Amino acid sequence: MLMDAFWSEVLGTAILLLLGGGVVATVLLPKSKGFDGGWLLINFGWGLAVFAGVYIAFKSGAHLNPAVTIGLFAAGEPFYNGPGGPIDPTIGNMLVYFAAELLGAFLGAVLMFLAFKKHFDEDADPAAKLAVFSTGPGIRSYGWNIVTEVIATFVLVFWVVIQSKTPTQIGPLAVALIVVGIGASLGGPTGYAINPARDLGPRIAHALLPIKGKGSSDWGYAWVPIVGPLIGGVIGGLVGAAYM
Amino acid sequence: MLMDAFWSEVLGTAILLLLGGGVVATVLLPKSKGFDGGWLLINFGWGLAVFAGVYIAFKSGAHLNPAVTIGLFAAGEPFYNGPGGPIDPTIGNMLVYFAAELLGAFLGAVLMFLAFKKHFDEDADPAAKLAVFSTGPGIRSYGWNIVTEVIATFVLVFWVVIQSKTPTQIGPLAVALIVVGIGASLGGPTGYAINPARDLGPRIAHALLPIKGKGSSDWGYAWVPIVGPLIGGVIGGLVGAAYM
Amino acid sequence: MLMDAFWSEVLGTAILLLLGGGVVATVLLPKSKGFDGGWLLINFGWGLAVFAGVYIAFKSGAHLNPAVTIGLFAAGEPFYNGPGGPIDPTIGNMLVYFAAELLGAFLGAVLMFLAFKKHFDEDADPAAKLAVFSTGPGIRSYGWNIVTEVIATFVLVFWVVIQSKTPTQIGPLAVALIVVGIGASLGGPTGYAINPARDLGPRIAHALLPIKGKGSSDWGYAWVPIVGPLIGGVIGGLVGAAYM
Amino acid sequence: MLMDAFWSEVLGTAILLLLGGGVVATVLLPKSKGFDGGWLLINFGWGLAVFAGVYIAFKSGAHLNPAVTIGLFAAGEPFYNGPGGPIDPTIGNMLVYFAAELLGAFLGAVLMFLAFKKHFDEDADPAAKLAVFSTGPGIRSYGWNIVTEVIATFVLVFWVVIQSKTPTQIGPLAVALIVVGIGASLGGPTGYAINPARDLGPRIAHALLPIKGKGSSDWGYAWVPIVGPLIGGVIGGLVGAAYM
Repeated sequence: MLMDAFWSEVLGTAILLLLGGGVVATVLLPKSKGFDGGWLLINFGWGLAVFAGVYIAFKSGAHLNPAVTIGLFAAGEPFYNGPGGPIDPTIGNMLVYFAAELLGAFLGAVLMFLAFKKHFDEDADPAAKLAVFSTGPGIRSYGWNIVTEVIATFVLVFWVVIQSKTPTQIGPLAVALIVVGIGASLGGPTGYAINPARDLGPRIAHALLPIKGKGSSDWGYAWVPIVGPLIGGVIGGLVGAAYM
Repeated sequence: MLMDAFWSEVLGTAILLLLGGGVVATVLLPKSKGFDGGWLLINFGWGLAVFAGVYIAFKSGAHLNPAVTIGLFAAGEPFYNGPGGPIDPTIGNMLVYFAAELLGAFLGAVLMFLAFKKHFDEDADPAAKLAVFSTGPGIRSYGWNIVTEVIATFVLVFWVVIQSKTPTQIGPLAVALIVVGIGASLGGPTGYAINPARDLGPRIAHALLPIKGKGSSDWGYAWVPIVGPLIGGVIGGLVGAAYM
Repeated sequence: MLMDAFWSEVLGTAILLLLGGGVVATVLLPKSKGFDGGWLLINFGWGLAVFAGVYIAFKSGAHLNPAVTIGLFAAGEPFYNGPGGPIDPTIGNMLVYFAAELLGAFLGAVLMFLAFKKHFDEDADPAAKLAVFSTGPGIRSYGWNIVTEVIATFVLVFWVVIQSKTPTQIGPLAVALIVVGIGASLGGPTGYAINPARDLGPRIAHALLPIKGKGSSDWGYAWVPIVGPLIGGVIGGLVGAAYM
Repeated sequence: MLMDAFWSEVLGTAILLLLGGGVVATVLLPKSKGFDGGWLLINFGWGLAVFAGVYIAFKSGAHLNPAVTIGLFAAGEPFYNGPGGPIDPTIGNMLVYFAAELLGAFLGAVLMFLAFKKHFDEDADPAAKLAVFSTGPGIRSYGWNIVTEVIATFVLVFWVVIQSKTPTQIGPLAVALIVVGIGASLGGPTGYAINPARDLGPRIAHALLPIKGKGSSDWGYAWVPIVGPLIGGVIGGLVGAAYM
């Protein structure tokens, strides 16, 4: 059952990064039909990447994100409570989820690279090629970049923890729209990682893949979209649990 | 129970302004990744800010807006009717809701400021920095600006009062989409405050916060997005009650 | 009961035109905050205008459109089948619906004019000022313009007639999205009237209102968005009834 | 019953191509009101074309796409399981679905041509006129173009096969949003055919119709959006069946 959840998170997070990385590639890479398609396109692309991934990961509660996993852990909520469940919020299970999410994010980024292979072969700013994989700040300032990621991730995880209190029946669409909203509203400064796996997995892929004309993988920034979302996730989980 | 509702409105309105102010910051502040992202981005950003806030404020009926509160008061509808309720539409309760909404809007604007701190530090038109916090008219004309805010708020509150008559199961998405629509269609002249707390709370924050290079908080206009929405809310509540 | 339906259609169609005309005003009129906001903004604005209007017109089946009314008449489907109903598809009832829809569209256009009064006072192309009220063709050719309106309205009414066969629970959102889709896809040539009242009511308002610097109301084209949608509605109703 | 399903697929796929082709015409053809409307407009237009088509094709399970049909065949899932069903996944039934989908796509493209007739008569790049009908690659490379189509179609069909495991009640909206997401994220390189009938039917229409100033129908590329989606559909069906 935990093995089912592991592969469920791998597959769901792979779809998340395939589509999420894909929409950035669509907007940033030369000769793409959606080149220069704008921020709202990126926001909807990422939101619908979540939408697709949540469906796929139906065997694990569809975290797709270590910040969600650690937030549920902090809140003491089960990781998964469907058929074959529950999966309790233990440290061991948390590490299994982390590993699955990171592996899935890496694999999704590789698939995205294959789908856009010829466009990566074109001449483009190396920073744009990195941006297709991982986030970077509009204005580099580790402290304030962390603040932004903490706040944005707090909104996501707080919402995840308390959303069951508002009965609706729109399923994965709700969290997809929350992610569209967080991106539209709080993505401007750092590109809204709000998910350590979403940033680290593709950054490893960027470092390993034979991308023509690629530049630095910017490892100096890599800790920000890990630490910020984890802090935001813990705060979101604790505040959510207290508020419920 | 009223204390629960108070904090529910504070939290929900804080999320509303964090995300709603955030999308304007994303579009207007230099070096934001969504700079110049367009009106539809702002409309979706605000609509999804409502979406998130309504989930959060599940303990108070999720008004998030004194115009909604006064509209329900005018209609004689309970402010909240869920677990632990009802909260009756009395003047005392109305003032509690007003206070919570204003406090939440102020806090949300402060959080938004923190998330975009480095972008506020950049050189930009002081009017743009104010526009991230509060609304202002495209063409200044207090009388006609009031008319626009009355009409736009009427649509919102009329809809809120009568919407329970059309059974659907999409929950907070419905009001979110109504706000997207009002913004797209009636936001052109005044930037659609349609909510006194949404405008006043952030305007106070703008006046108090140490925003680099900020200009006037434009207090001369501040009464318009208070009076217009309150009038529109009362009319919406009365017409809604009569029509039902 | 028919009187209830009459006012329901009046109110719903007024909201439709207030918001639908409003989004065009937002995009076309000088100094609007959404100036030049693009076609997708217009499509979402109109779709959400339908969304709002359908909620409001819950006492009449929410036609808001003579093409829908005549389509249901052709299909032999009741105009309304909720509490206090049914309202049968007779010629007399059809004329009542037509009158309500036309009156509502006129009133909505007047409200829209008031909301954008100062922006109408600015200098702008008289054709743009008319376009806020009524539709016009990209390439004038009455025969082909009719064809476009017939096809686009057929899609709408065919969908309205058969949609009850696909169980969903998203309520007015479904028809709103259909209208977004028809606008995005088939609105290019003629601006998708797909509704005689939507075009004629505001055209009368354009002729009567004291709009600064207005030009012709283009009555030479006015019959196209009446005849085309009525034909499309009848075909949609008949094909829908045969297909079910 | 199979005859019902045949016409259901014809009608649904015709609506799909009428609206899907239409949004591309809206964006690419001169003097259209949505000219140059951007990639997100195209993505929403196609998604809502699916939305409309799925409602219409309620008698056949609404495949509208040979890649979905072959994916369900590979997964061993019934093609249709509603009133009058089931329709089993046999080779004979698959060929009936294929024929209906291709015929519908051809007819929808013809209707789209009629709706935009005057705009096709304008001078425009022959490649743009073809692009309204059929897909083409941003960078021509048959091998990598196939890879992109395989990956994008895999996402669609995998989702279709497993989506019944995540209970939601938003009906055709879910698959519509998946298609919006696939287009936004993976449409950049090849224009996301992800459906052999969607590409081949309109390409035949392009070849046969008297389109003013048309150029080549690019038959050299035509096999890519047939073979790629069929491979992706089979993989999606097999992986989906194994994963469930």
